[in-house]
Amino acid sequence: MSASDSFAPDATLADVGEFALVAALTSRFEQGSQVYVGPGDDAAVIRTPKGHVVVSTDLLVEGRHFKREWAPARDIGRKAAASNLSDINAMGGTAHSLTVGLGAPADLPARWALDLAEGLAEEAALVGASIVGGDLTTASEVVIAVTVLGTCEVAPVLRSGAHAGDVVAIAGRQGWAAAGLAVLARGFRSPRALVQAYQRPQPPYAAGRAAAQAGATAMIDVSDGLLADLGHIARDSAVAIDIHRDAFELADPMHAVGSALGVDPMQFILGGGDDHAIVATFPARSALPAGFTAIGSVEEPGESGPSVTVDGAAYDGPTGWAHFA
Amino acid sequence: MSASDSFAPDATLADVGEFALVAALTSRFEQGSQVYVGPGDDAAVIRTPKGHVVVSTDLLVEGRHFKREWAPARDIGRKAAASNLSDINAMGGTAHSLTVGLGAPADLPARWALDLAEGLAEEAALVGASIVGGDLTTASEVVIAVTVLGTCEVAPVLRSGAHAGDVVAIAGRQGWAAAGLAVLARGFRSPRALVQAYQRPQPPYAAGRAAAQAGATAMIDVSDGLLADLGHIARDSAVAIDIHRDAFELADPMHAVGSALGVDPMQFILGGGDDHAIVATFPARSALPAGFTAIGSVEEPGESGPSVTVDGAAYDGPTGWAHFA
Repeated sequence: MSASDSFAPDATLADVGEFALVAALTSRFEQGSQVYVGPGDDAAVIRTPKGHVVVSTDLLVEGRHFKREWAPARDIGRKAAASNLSDINAMGGTAHSLTVGLGAPADLPARWALDLAEGLAEEAALVGASIVGGDLTTASEVVIAVTVLGTCEVAPVLRSGAHAGDVVAIAGRQGWAAAGLAVLARGFRSPRALVQAYQRPQPPYAAGRAAAQAGATAMIDVSDGLLADLGHIARDSAVAIDIHRDAFELADPMHAVGSALGVDPMQFILGGGDDHAIVATFPARSALPAGFTAIGSVEEPGESGPSVTVDGAAYDGPTGWAHFA
Repeated sequence: MSASDSFAPDATLADVGEFALVAALTSRFEQGSQVYVGPGDDAAVIRTPKGHVVVSTDLLVEGRHFKREWAPARDIGRKAAASNLSDINAMGGTAHSLTVGLGAPADLPARWALDLAEGLAEEAALVGASIVGGDLTTASEVVIAVTVLGTCEVAPVLRSGAHAGDVVAIAGRQGWAAAGLAVLARGFRSPRALVQAYQRPQPPYAAGRAAAQAGATAMIDVSDGLLADLGHIARDSAVAIDIHRDAFELADPMHAVGSALGVDPMQFILGGGDDHAIVATFPARSALPAGFTAIGSVEEPGESGPSVTVDGAAYDGPTGWAHFA
């Protein structure tokens, strides 16, 4: 009997919540012997007769994942592709192709759709991937479904391989996009570097493969929020992770936004997800690949199980968000 | 300069129309050397370092592609998977995995989402494929994004390979689902066999691979409508196709629905698409694989270019439909 069988018959998605619903849904999906990595990691890995394919999918909905007034269509396209390419990055793989489904109202400017397409293709080209197919349909709001396919040169790096004693390290900017979103949400347009970081993230596309080749034990892309995503590694690896604030250097625009909004900018680093940074764990004393900075350590879990702490203590600031919650 | 550059700056999707928009969008998608078949066929085919992957994607929107009151969630899931699995079928391939993105209002019954998932998994299991990943998000209407991945044992069969002299043949039921939809749209629930054909199509999943192995020259799955989809083969192969009404045996429920609705049931066969039948062209005098019935012939195109005719004449009944038109 799956956990979902205990849902009340009239329970809605909001009643059940995103995580319980995902668990109930995936319990319906029996995995065949061809599936090397199924649901629950950054991407799935399927063995094929002569090779393998790494695949991940995202569904972006207007007003929830993007707003047309907050970014030009080209940037929305780049961001939609980036979010997916980052999932292949987090497995240690390289993307080769994407498919895109676009649902849109009939009165959407055609120019907007073309700009979106150009943004998608531009971002894909950064890793040598092509948009190979798609679907177009009417919908009452703009929805963008992106699926990315890729391959791994070495074994894919999962969320479940971290060990006590490993070093936690990050590649790419972290917190900039979340700070940019906070700025936009308050009606401001600066600091410009942060707004641009939100509108057009720059994921560290070389980092995932480099980490895999350097022997990373676990890896994830930061999309739910740094602590939330480290929580996925902690839970799947059954470890405790402690992050050190001092490891993060606060860039000038982050100080500026903290002063302007009257908040501790560290919350954007600990809770932000839209930069698509890569966090990975490496065996102690291994040389970190170029682009990675150590930010914490992996420890044996305490009595209460897997955990993520900041400087040894629970963190009670914002750490991302859940749908339907 | 692409055709799309001639769009008026303020043109909407409705102004431009689906086909011109798809052409403009795909012109933005440069295809890398890894792409063996890009946009424009039933599925794309990408070469990978050690193998290949066949991929196709569909976006289904409530009220446009399905109505919750017209079919139970499990059937909608089966149909969503079937529509995608059929695209791999039409390349002569076999699907091994699917990803699913679900966007839904927070007040959707959780039970509906679980039933949908079970339907998706059931249909996938018919060909040995697994649901390997997905995404879940809030949206103001239900949207289902399905991507299917597969492989081909022999070279994929494209839409572009038909030659004058070839035989046109079909596998699977044709017109039943369209007749069922017509029944539902008028508020009826019978003939039951037709309504069920619409709610839960039974694509001929063995037919595509069999056709490829038998040397089919061109192939497509019937999703836009039989004549519309034969039009894709005619155009991409630069041929004329003539279909023979006599080749179709009208089953009893089709006669019944024709009488009840006061229409010629042949319109459902010529214009319907929801059964996911497979049509293919084969060299003259080749033995058709099991399950295929000859329905017409391929000829040299006339002066006006590629065409599809019925018993030698243009057909002016319903032949499918276009989004945004």
